[in-house]
Parts: sequence; C-alpha cells; structure tokens
Amino acid sequence: MAKGTQNKNLDEGNFDFGIIKSETSTDYAQLDLFHRAASPIMLLAQCFAIMPLTGIRRASPRHVHFRFKSVPMIVTVIFMMASSVLTLSMLKFLLNIGVTAKNFVGQVFFTCVQCACILFIDLARRWPPLIRYWTRLELIFTKPPYEVLKRSLSQRVRQPAFILIALSLVEHGLYLSSAIVSYKQRVYYCTENHNATMGVSFDDYIKLNYDYVFILLPYTRFFGIYVLVVNGTCTFIWNYMDLFIMMISRGLAYRFEQISKRICRLEHEDRVPETTFMEIREHYVRMCELLERVDDALSSIILLSCANNLYFVCCQLLNIFNKLRWPINYIYFWYSMLYLVGRTACVFLTAATINDESKSALSVLRRVSSKNWCVEVERLIFQMSTQTVALSGKKFYFLTRRLLFGMAGTIVTYELVLLQFDEPNRRKGLLPLCA
Amino acid sequence: MAKGTQNKNLDEGNFDFGIIKSETSTDYAQLDLFHRAASPIMLLAQCFAIMPLTGIRRASPRHVHFRFKSVPMIVTVIFMMASSVLTLSMLKFLLNIGVTAKNFVGQVFFTCVQCACILFIDLARRWPPLIRYWTRLELIFTKPPYEVLKRSLSQRVRQPAFILIALSLVEHGLYLSSAIVSYKQRVYYCTENHNATMGVSFDDYIKLNYDYVFILLPYTRFFGIYVLVVNGTCTFIWNYMDLFIMMISRGLAYRFEQISKRICRLEHEDRVPETTFMEIREHYVRMCELLERVDDALSSIILLSCANNLYFVCCQLLNIFNKLRWPINYIYFWYSMLYLVGRTACVFLTAATINDESKSALSVLRRVSSKNWCVEVERLIFQMSTQTVALSGKKFYFLTRRLLFGMAGTIVTYELVLLQFDEPNRRKGLLPLCA
Amino acid sequence: MAKGTQNKNLDEGNFDFGIIKSETSTDYAQLDLFHRAASPIMLLAQCFAIMPLTGIRRASPRHVHFRFKSVPMIVTVIFMMASSVLTLSMLKFLLNIGVTAKNFVGQVFFTCVQCACILFIDLARRWPPLIRYWTRLELIFTKPPYEVLKRSLSQRVRQPAFILIALSLVEHGLYLSSAIVSYKQRVYYCTENHNATMGVSFDDYIKLNYDYVFILLPYTRFFGIYVLVVNGTCTFIWNYMDLFIMMISRGLAYRFEQISKRICRLEHEDRVPETTFMEIREHYVRMCELLERVDDALSSIILLSCANNLYFVCCQLLNIFNKLRWPINYIYFWYSMLYLVGRTACVFLTAATINDESKSALSVLRRVSSKNWCVEVERLIFQMSTQTVALSGKKFYFLTRRLLFGMAGTIVTYELVLLQFDEPNRRKGLLPLCA
Amino acid sequence: MAKGTQNKNLDEGNFDFGIIKSETSTDYAQLDLFHRAASPIMLLAQCFAIMPLTGIRRASPRHVHFRFKSVPMIVTVIFMMASSVLTLSMLKFLLNIGVTAKNFVGQVFFTCVQCACILFIDLARRWPPLIRYWTRLELIFTKPPYEVLKRSLSQRVRQPAFILIALSLVEHGLYLSSAIVSYKQRVYYCTENHNATMGVSFDDYIKLNYDYVFILLPYTRFFGIYVLVVNGTCTFIWNYMDLFIMMISRGLAYRFEQISKRICRLEHEDRVPETTFMEIREHYVRMCELLERVDDALSSIILLSCANNLYFVCCQLLNIFNKLRWPINYIYFWYSMLYLVGRTACVFLTAATINDESKSALSVLRRVSSKNWCVEVERLIFQMSTQTVALSGKKFYFLTRRLLFGMAGTIVTYELVLLQFDEPNRRKGLLPLCA
Repeated sequence: MAKGTQNKNLDEGNFDFGIIKSETSTDYAQLDLFHRAASPIMLLAQCFAIMPLTGIRRASPRHVHFRFKSVPMIVTVIFMMASSVLTLSMLKFLLNIGVTAKNFVGQVFFTCVQCACILFIDLARRWPPLIRYWTRLELIFTKPPYEVLKRSLSQRVRQPAFILIALSLVEHGLYLSSAIVSYKQRVYYCTENHNATMGVSFDDYIKLNYDYVFILLPYTRFFGIYVLVVNGTCTFIWNYMDLFIMMISRGLAYRFEQISKRICRLEHEDRVPETTFMEIREHYVRMCELLERVDDALSSIILLSCANNLYFVCCQLLNIFNKLRWPINYIYFWYSMLYLVGRTACVFLTAATINDESKSALSVLRRVSSKNWCVEVERLIFQMSTQTVALSGKKFYFLTRRLLFGMAGTIVTYELVLLQFDEPNRRKGLLPLCA
Repeated sequence: MAKGTQNKNLDEGNFDFGIIKSETSTDYAQLDLFHRAASPIMLLAQCFAIMPLTGIRRASPRHVHFRFKSVPMIVTVIFMMASSVLTLSMLKFLLNIGVTAKNFVGQVFFTCVQCACILFIDLARRWPPLIRYWTRLELIFTKPPYEVLKRSLSQRVRQPAFILIALSLVEHGLYLSSAIVSYKQRVYYCTENHNATMGVSFDDYIKLNYDYVFILLPYTRFFGIYVLVVNGTCTFIWNYMDLFIMMISRGLAYRFEQISKRICRLEHEDRVPETTFMEIREHYVRMCELLERVDDALSSIILLSCANNLYFVCCQLLNIFNKLRWPINYIYFWYSMLYLVGRTACVFLTAATINDESKSALSVLRRVSSKNWCVEVERLIFQMSTQTVALSGKKFYFLTRRLLFGMAGTIVTYELVLLQFDEPNRRKGLLPLCA
Repeated sequence: MAKGTQNKNLDEGNFDFGIIKSETSTDYAQLDLFHRAASPIMLLAQCFAIMPLTGIRRASPRHVHFRFKSVPMIVTVIFMMASSVLTLSMLKFLLNIGVTAKNFVGQVFFTCVQCACILFIDLARRWPPLIRYWTRLELIFTKPPYEVLKRSLSQRVRQPAFILIALSLVEHGLYLSSAIVSYKQRVYYCTENHNATMGVSFDDYIKLNYDYVFILLPYTRFFGIYVLVVNGTCTFIWNYMDLFIMMISRGLAYRFEQISKRICRLEHEDRVPETTFMEIREHYVRMCELLERVDDALSSIILLSCANNLYFVCCQLLNIFNKLRWPINYIYFWYSMLYLVGRTACVFLTAATINDESKSALSVLRRVSSKNWCVEVERLIFQMSTQTVALSGKKFYFLTRRLLFGMAGTIVTYELVLLQFDEPNRRKGLLPLCA
Repeated sequence: MAKGTQNKNLDEGNFDFGIIKSETSTDYAQLDLFHRAASPIMLLAQCFAIMPLTGIRRASPRHVHFRFKSVPMIVTVIFMMASSVLTLSMLKFLLNIGVTAKNFVGQVFFTCVQCACILFIDLARRWPPLIRYWTRLELIFTKPPYEVLKRSLSQRVRQPAFILIALSLVEHGLYLSSAIVSYKQRVYYCTENHNATMGVSFDDYIKLNYDYVFILLPYTRFFGIYVLVVNGTCTFIWNYMDLFIMMISRGLAYRFEQISKRICRLEHEDRVPETTFMEIREHYVRMCELLERVDDALSSIILLSCANNLYFVCCQLLNIFNKLRWPINYIYFWYSMLYLVGRTACVFLTAATINDESKSALSVLRRVSSKNWCVEVERLIFQMSTQTVALSGKKFYFLTRRLLFGMAGTIVTYELVLLQFDEPNRRKGLLPLCA
C-alpha cells in the first residue's frame, strides 16, 4: 500500500521543509502556485485584521507562521475589541427598543463579522501546515505532463478578488453617499418647512446615523471617526469571507482542470500504458485528499458565509417593493441588492466548479477502448461517479450546482409567499420626515 | 484510446464536409435526419426573427451558415428594435403607476421574449458546427443494424410542432377575441347606462388595450398595426422556445430508442460477440457526447423556458377563482390556462423521454447470460446506471420525470397556501365598468 | 443471450396456454398463486362495476378474458352512466352557488371515482395477458428450492382486503348514521324551538342531503334509492383503488421475499456453485420484469389513488378543529379521518414492502465469502444496490419508505402553516340551525 | 458461504453463553465493552422506571434478563399508572376548555413520555439477546490488531450522559424556580395592588400550577407531592430518550472508528495480504449487521424522539418574541430553548457520526495501490460507497448529516413564514395579572 518514497513526506502533512535540503533549491517565486497567487490578497486582508500570519510575503510557504505574539495578531485583537463595542452597544440599543425582524439586520451583520474574525484566526492557526502540504502537492502540477492552462492560476485567483473589491468599494461608497445625501436633504427640508434651524455637520451626521453607539460611548469627534473606520473594516471582512472561498475554489478547481486536460490529451493516443492511468489516479486521489483537508479547515467559514448570504439576500428581497424617499436611496438599494445576489451566486458557482471539474474527465474515460481498459481506469471512473468532490458546509451540504438550484427554489418560493402577504405593510408609505 | 480511423473526424466537431470527397455523394435528402426533419419548422421560425441562419433549406447541413450580414439576421435585428420599444414603454408605464405582482406579467413576457431572441442568436452562431457533428453521427443510425422505428424521425419531430402551432394560433385568436369582445361590450354598456357617447373603432381599441405603448410613441394607425404585429411575433417566439426544446428532445430520444431496440433484438441471439457490445457502447457514448454538446448550446434556452413557464403557470393558477365579466373572458382564461399547463407538462415530459430511453435497455442488459457477459456489457450497465443522460438547465437541474414531480409538488403546495389566504381579495368582485 | 428453452415462452408475454399441452395438467386450484388468491376479491369488485372480466372464477388464468360484450361490462357501463348523472348535477350545483375550496370536495370525490372506473376498464383490457404471464412466472416459486413462507400468499393477499372492507363498511355506516341523526335532531330541534312543523320522512332526508341531484332530476322515491345505491357503490370503488394496490403489492412482495429467503438459506452452505447464483439472479431479474409490466398497467391507478388520498387527507386535517353540532358528527369525523390517514399510510407502506423485500437479501450477499464470490453475485449485488425496484406513479415517483417520509413532512408543514392562519375562521362557531 | 467455525455461534443471535465453556473465563469486567460502559446509566434510568431489566449490574451480559415478575418491572408499571392519571386529567381538562395549538403542548409531553415508557419496555424485552450478540461481536475489537482509541468507549458513552443529565437538572431547576417565583411575585403584587389577601403556601402553588390534575383527583398534600414526583420522572424520561440514542450511537461509532483506524494503519505497509482485507471486510459487514439489529430494536424510539424534538423546537421557536412578566421567566425560556435546540442537534449529530465513521476509511481505500488491489478491497469500497450505514427512523429516514441540514432548512423556512405573520398576536402584550 506504500506509494513509493518520492511522495512519502507528503503524507505527513506538517513536514518540515528544512530537512529536505534538495528542495530548498526550488525557486517558488517562479512557479504558478496558490500561495504566490493568493498572498497579495491575503496581505491586504491582514491590514483589515484578517488571518494574522507572518511571512506571507515570502515566496516559499515554509516561512508562513502563526504566532500569538506578532504584529498581525495585535491588529486583529485591537479590531476585535473595537468592533465588540459596536456589537454590544447595538445589542443594548435593540433590547431597549425591542427586537423586530426589521431592526435585527445590524445585529446580525456585526455578529457575523465577529464570528468571521474568530474563524479566520482559527484558520490562520491551521494555515501554515496546510499551505505547505498544498504547495508540495502543487509542485507535481507545475511540471510536465501537466500543462499550464490558458489563464494562469495567479490570474484566476486574483481576478475575482480585484473585481469583488472594486464592486464592494462602490457599494460602500454608495452606502455612505446614500446616508449623507439623506441626512443633508432632511436638514434642508426640515429647515424650510418646519422652521427648525439645523445646521449640517459631521458630528450631527454621525450622531444620527450611529445613534446606537453613543448610548454606550460619549460622543467625541474621535469616536465619530472610530465608528466610521470600524464600520468600513467590518464591511471589508463581510466581503472577504466570500472572496476567500472563491480564491480557494479557483485554486483547487485549477488543478482538477489540469488533470482533466491531461486525460483528454490521452484520448488521441493509440496505446496508453496502465502506469499512466495509475499516476493520474494517484494525483486525482491526492487532490481529493487536499480538498478534504482544505474543507476541514474552511467549512466553518463556508457555513457562516452561506447563512450570512442567505439571510441578507432574503432581507433585501423582502424590501424590494418598499418606498424610499430619495433617488440616491433607490440607487443604493438596487445596487446593493444586485451586488449581494450576484456575490452569493458567484460564491456558490465558483465553489461548484470544483465539483464540475472533478467530473469533467468522466466522458473521456468512458470512451477508453477495450484495448486500453484496465483496473485503474475502472477505479477512476467508479470514484468519479460515486464520490462527491466538493467543498462543504461542515459536511451538512456540498457546494454543487444542484444545491444552488435547490436553495434558489426555496428562496423564490419563500419570497413569493411573503411578498403576497406583505402587501398591506408596503402600502403604508413613508413616515413623516421631521418628527 | 484511439477509436479507429473511420470515426476520427467526428471528434473534431467543426470538421469540413468538403474535404471528405467520398461523403459528398451521400444523398441527405433521402435520409431521415434531424436536420431534414426540423428544417421546415426552423424556416418558419426565421420568418418570426428566430435563429438567423442561411442555407437551412438545403438538404445537407454543410450549407448551413451563420452570417451577421444576411437577410435573416436583418429581420432579427429589426424585430429586436421594434420589440424593444414595447418593452421600454411598458417599463416606463410601470414605473409611473407603481409595480405590483399583478401588472408585472406583461413586463416579464416582453423581457422573456427579448432574452429568447438573444439566446437564439447565440444558438444560431453555434448551430452550424453542431448540426454538422449531429448529422455525421446520425449517419451511423440510418444504416443497419439500426432499424427505422415505427414512426419516422421526421414525423416525430414535426408532429409536436404542428400541434403546438395550431393550439397557439387558437390561443392567440381567443386572446384577440376576448379583448375585442370586452372592448365592444364595454362601449355598448357604457353608452347605454351612462349616457357616454363612445363609438367602436380600431384606433380606440388599440389605444385602450395598448395604452402603455402610446406614452412613448404618438398614436397613428401605422403604430397601431405595428403594435399588433410585434405582439403576435412575440407570442410566436414565446411558444417557439418550448417547441424547439421539444423538437430537439424528440430528435435525440429517437436515436437512444434505436440503440435500445438494437440491444433488445440481441436478447434472442444465442451467442453475441464482444465486438457487438463494444460497438453499441461506442455509439451510446457518442450519443451521450452529442447530448452534452446540444445541452451546452441549448441549456440557457431551457433555463429561460422553465423559469418562464413556471412563472406563467403560477400566475394563471392564482387567478383561477377570479371573477371575470364576460363569458368570452372565461373561455379565453381557461383555454389559456390549460394550454399553458399542458405545454409546460409536454416540454418537461418530452425532454424527459431522453432520460427514459437512455435507460430503457438496462432491463435487457441485466438479463445477459453469463455466457455473453463481458467487460463491455459491465461498463455499459455501469454507465447507464450512474450517468444522468438528460438535457439540463445549465446543469442546475436535469429534465427527468422526477424533476417534474418535484416541481409539480412545489407548485401545488405553493398554490394551496396562497389560495387559502387570497380568499378575501377574490371576494371583492369586479370594479365598476365605466370609470 | 438466450436463457435456455425451458423459459422461452415466458418472454412472449401473451403466450397461449393451450399450445403447451403438458402444462394443462397443472392443477392451478392446488397452487398458491396470485390469481387464485385475488379472484374472490376481484369477483366481489365486479358486483360494484370494477374490472369487467369474464372467467375470473376459474382456477386457471387461461380462462380470464376481457370482452366488450359481457355481463360485467354491461354492469360497468350502467354504473358509469348512473354516476355521471350525480357528477354532472353536482357540477351544475357548484357552478350555480360558486366554487370554493370547501364545497369542492364532493366534486373531486365523484370525478375520482369516474376516473378510477375508466382506468380499471383499461386495466381489465390488459389484465388477461398480464395475469397469464404472472402465473407462469409464479409456477417457478411454487416448487423447491423455493419454500412456502409462514403465511401463505392467499392469506396475505386476502387479509388486507377483509380488514379494509370491514373498516370501510363501518365508515359508510357511520356516515349514514351521522347524516340521519343530524337530520332527525334538526327536525326535532326546529319543531320545538321555532314552531316549525316538519315531519321526519325518508323523502325529506334524501331531498335535504342530496339536494344537488334534484336540480337535474325530479324527486321520486325511486331516484332517492338510486342516489343511495350509487353513492354506496362510489364509496366502494373509492376504497377499492387502494385495496387493489395493496393486493398487488402483497402478491409481488411475497415472491421477492421467497428469493431473499432462498439466498439466506445459502448462507450456511459451505460451497455454493455459480449456477445457483445464476438461477437466483435470473429469477430476480424476471421478478423485476414482472414488476415493470405490472407497474406499466397499474401506475395510472397508483397516481390517481395517491392524488386522491393526499387531497382527502389534507382536507380532513384542515377541518380538525372545526366545531360540529352533534356527538355522532364528532364520532364520524374522527373515525373517518383516522380511517383515511390509516388507509393512506397502509397503501404506501404495503407498496413499499416490495422495495424493502427486493433489497433484503443484500446483507447476506455482502457476506458471501471470497471462496463463493463470482461474477453472478457481483452482478446481483450491483443490481440490488442501484436499481429502484418498486411500484411507481407513472415513473414520476417510486413508492418507497423514503417517499412516504417526504410526503408526510410536506403535509405536516403545510397543515401547520394553514392551521396557524385558519384560526379566525375556526372561532366563528356554528351557523344557526333553522334558517 | 460459511465464514469459518470460530464465529459461527455469532450468527445465531440468541446463543447461550453457558455452552461455550472456554468463554466463561473471559473477564468482562476488564474489557471496554458497551454493556459495561452503559450499565451505570441504565441502572440510574431503572430508578426512573425505564427499561425494566435484571442483572444489568453484572459484568457479563449473560446475566441480563427481562422478566415480567421483577422489581424494575413493578416500578415501571406503578409509574405508568401514576402518570396515566396526569395524562388523563390533562386530556379531560383540555376537552373542557377547548384544544388550541398553545395549550396542546402539555398533552403532547405526557403522551410522548407514556409512549416512550411502553417502547422502552418493548426494547427491554429484546435487549438480552441483543446485548449478548453485541458483546460477543465486540470481543473481536478488544484484541489486536484493533487498538484502543484515544478516549475509551466507557468515557465516550458516559460523557454525554453526565453532561445531559447535569444540563437537564439545571433545566428542571429553572423550571421550578420560574414557576415558584412567578407564583410568589403574583401573590405579592395582587395583595398590594388589589387588596386581595393571599398567603404564599405550598398547597396553593400546586393547586394553581397543576390545576388540571385536581379536576380528577381531590387535593391533598400527598397528591401535591405525587404530582411533583411524577412530573420530575416524566422530565427525566423525556430526556433519557435522547440520551439513550446518543449512548448507542457512540457505542457503534466507536467500533466503526476502530475499523477505520486499522485500515489507515495499513496504508504505510508495503504489501498487504488479501486475507487481511478479507478479515476487515468481514468485521465491517458484521458491524453493519449489528447496526441493523440495533436499528430494528431502537428505531421506534428514534422516530418518537425525532417527532418529539421537532415538535418542541418548533413550539419554542414560535414563542421567541413573546413578552414574559418576570426576568426569571426569560432566563428559563431562553435556557430551555437553547437546551432543547442543543439537545436535538446533539442527538442528530451523534447519531450521524456512525454514518461518518463508516465512510471515513474510504479515502484510504481509494489510495490502495495496484499491487495490493484485490476483489476484497473492491467489494469493501463498493459497499461503503453505496450502502447507507446509519440509524434510521423505521427506515423512513436515515440519521445522517444531510438529513439534519434538510430538517434545519425546513424548520427555518417554516419559522420565518410564521414569525412574519404572527406579529399582530405578539404585540398584544400580557394579560392582567390578577383576574
């Protein structure tokens, strides 16, 4: 059952790079590895207190470490404390005025971000051995007979990151614009129509929009800026959860695609030795193992991300027919909703590509002629047919295209039922502006 | 892994018919091919701006081409622009009066048709290589040992087309009758009871029924006719989506049935050589590949068609207890609802026959005696048992009988819940006729 | 692929018993066959116009025939016409007063019975070849190595029949009692309290309870009795649908159990020749084929029965908190509801035993030692693991235990939602008795 | 098909330990067996009238017997009678005041406990042969090559028991505190504000809180204590159902984990003889058979436990926004709800570990190299891939992680719909305290 010595240390997972001297010569900076592809994004995330690791900038994953006493960890802890203040003050605020389905959204948002933060710390703890194992396995795929695919791994991993970050910046900008414009318009309107003399000021704006914070803290300009900064960081983390799942998915799907492509190339060969299939199957099984490990470390975040996305999508869809006061509110609402639905769909679809790619060679394998048929091909077909190769939410569900269909169906049915009966509430219209 | 030279060019997909001189002698007009069977219907559809291809009339698929500069493409573009006007004017109309679940139906209808039009252009672009690949594969099934089935492919493909077109014409006729009779009755009634002096005229009828158009366009008799024509064309396209899926399904299911029949005939033979099973399995795998390709090109349309059908079925079912004013309204409503439910069920069931036929030989293969048992039979059984051979909606779901059951169950539950609570609304009765 | 000559004529399905002279000596009356077990029940059903066949009383299925010109067929046609009158008069009645969810129940009942009647005629047409094929196959299982199970086939088939008929008689009796007592109490109460002078008479009772009939027919005593008789017959047919499915299921499950038992006995043998497994697999495959045929003939009735049962269960469950006037109404309502739920569960569970039994030998086969392992065992295990051996509703769903769980879940959720919101209606109380 | 003589008597299930003299020397007290691990908990349960068996204290399962004439059985019967009084008096009470969804909870609680009691008697009847079979099979796993896992079986089985009992004691304590504080506060408040002169007394407290009992029984101090004792015992039984399922699950999952661990150790061996895999597969199949037997005996209790848990979780979740009067009520409500949801999740998750563990060796088996590949490994992989190894609710559903996901999804959707519409009821506030 031993799989030869050359891969032996792979099995140990947490192996030490230092021991194998011959490996030190590998120039990681030249290779198209997941660690290299993801590191800029992960560095950026560290500025927002996510995944406190050291040595991410270095080319070799050997230098990646998790230490409780390190700069990123301190940043994370500070942010955790800062955001706890907001979470607690909102909780106190809600308990005062009474919780309803509508005002619960903010609480969920902050709690989600706090949980994400903790889960990312846990992930950071498991990351160094995982990324070393991953990188070692990836070395196989950087050499022939595996080819580099049309768009390189780096491009594939970074592309969704850049797009998502850009879109989320727009979203946050629109959120701020919407809040500021609403505030200004209100002041102008009330001054004119009700003879109230209110000036437009930064302090007033903060006090009005983040009133819940200042039942726990006294208002000062410093705390005003502090609230804005923490809020922005929370939004980043809230987006990064999904982004990280997408990057991981791209990284894994790329390797499965390489295996598929190699199998496809065999199709035109007349005589394929059994050892080739043996090797392919071994690599396929190794990739499945890697996926298993990644899933083990990541699935809490997946579970949180899914629950979070479904909750916010449902909330937004329910408000779809609500009347809003200013055009900028409509623009923000619709952009935000489309962004949210799009992001959710993207996470699911990107994660589902792992499953798609893992099965894509099946049609070629089914065409293997009698001449080339062997036990290894049979085993590979059986495994591909019966195993669900996909990221999962704690094994409760697997992220496949079918799941997305089921969830979409449930959401649509649920929304249709609620929209039908929510009509009386929607007709009520807007509350008076200057109360 | 090579499957012999005689089928090699099949694998290239977009192969050029011209190179293989020996093939030019094939008299396509005499053969029972899908291209021949579907071409009259596709020609008709081109008159309604769908799938702008040239050379469809020709017997050989070699002459089918997609060109941006061609007559059908011009027709399509003109229609797209013409219908955009209606779509936009309805959108503007809705934004003015406020969107509700009830008045949203028209917007969905026009948007669906526009999307269908674009998807069919995309399909047209992929069609020439696809139909050539398909035809080349079909040549295998026109020769022994494959037999012509009881009803030929042409009959099977064209039959649902003729029936559906006839029924949709009746539907559209009833729709017009219902609208005209309602208009006339209203004029008579209001003239009599309210001393209003209104004359019955074509212009008035158009203005009243398509009021949304004329907030964007000025009313002239030309625009009146234009609205009617575009409306009619839209209805055709709306029906053609389903029709096309049915034709494709029939075409594919026919070939799977031929394979099944061939396997069934083997049952009574004493000794079947392994090469026979090898050949059958190869043909089966090829058909699966064809299905994969067709599904790849068609599944956007399938997704649109399903969403569209489910939406309209739900809408119609919700109005089932509504009070209507004139008998012709009831006739139209019930015909229209039964037509819609029937069409939806037909599309699903016809598409599901592919899945049914692909598995139908399984019971015969299970009876293969030990004497004839070989790896090829085992592989064929395994593939038939584990692979879902069916058209899909972008791989989110597969069109099988079980899916239809699940969907029907969901719709029924949903309708039951809504009908139970919609009762107060339904009791309200009709609005005054002459307001 | 030939399976030897001794079973050849089995494959032809509609084979003629007369030709095989040697078979005529078989004493069918002595054998424990499904035809013999079910014939008394089927004879009884013929008195209620179901399955118009001739020769059912005869021991050999060779004498069973379907003829359009026969006594049972005449009975059926007369009943169909008689019940049509009731169906149509109820339809007219409903169109007059307006259809609601509550008064729709009667119409569904009559339409179901009419459909069942037609479906049973269609089944009768296919029955003679089916029962001959079935009987021929059953002869295998009446001889060693197959053993007679603890309770014979006849007992198993007839037992649910007797119980169901007895319970349905009680149900119908309670229905009549409930109606009569309500009528009498009402007359007494109204005479006393409102000084109305009403006498208790058979004619009045009929006119009041079956008022819908007499908008189409004039009231005479003859028509009164006619209504009672047709109503009773309809109730019988409504119950017989389920009963028939249960009898068929028992008949098929018995044979699968015999195969399982035979496999279980092999467990203690040291050395089992491959030919034994070959024979067992052949019989298993044959049983699957029989099931396929039976399912083909029966699945329309299954679909109707399921839809019918689910509809009535939902209706009854919704009325669970309704206030009723007299104790006998409560007794009838609760008996009727429990009877309905019990009957529905029984049909599903009995049908699911086929699926259970078909898989029950799997655990024994998995223990087959390496010594006895052969291709035949592998094939048998593969078939048992991957094939869904069960009766189906037109292949839309298979009657397995899991389906029952899913359906029960859906019904419970649906009922919970509805009960929650139906409370205001339920509080209204009873209408005045003498209006 | 015989599996050698050394395990032969295992197959007989109800074999007599006495006959095999050599076995009597086995020192059961030293071994880590399920019987030893569970017996203290089962002894405790017997004090609360559950599973009336004799000889549980003895080390060897040979001494475990079920006798109708025994002390535990008498305890059980007495409790059954005592609790019947409460059940019946509550039923009478409900019929008097009218059943609603809200006041139905108590009735469900008592009925559940009564059913559980009966099901545990039935289980006790089947327990002696089952535990003997189980113990005999476990002996295999106490010897090499099987290793003792990190935490021993006893620890694993007893740990959830201790935690659950502790938490349930807290729950019951809070329930009593909540009731007593509410009672006292009410008396103080009403005396002060309404000049009513009420004293705080044990008798009054009982009369008020268990009013339904005293419409059937006269109030005496004895009956007051009797009500408290029976109530406490009912609560224990209500918790024990879940506890017992968890213990069984842990016991079975432990053995599957041992098999997995053994397979994992093989991974590093160069050459594994086929006989090793043969032995492993045999043990795996035996464990599956044991699971089958346990499931057969236990699945009624599982079904009851699931239905019970889902009902109470739904009930509690619906009351989540209700207003309560005193802080202790909130503390009790929230503790009780979290405890209930946590317990339900724990039962499902613990039961699902059997399924998880049974598949966990699959990834190692997939890596078996060509050199070691043999029919036995193929069979083992096929069985692990296709068989659902899990406890079930009467085979209607299997307790796997996916089921939990499906159920959670259904509950959440259902709650969301109900909460949305229940808002008007929730706003009503509290009833006047001193009515």
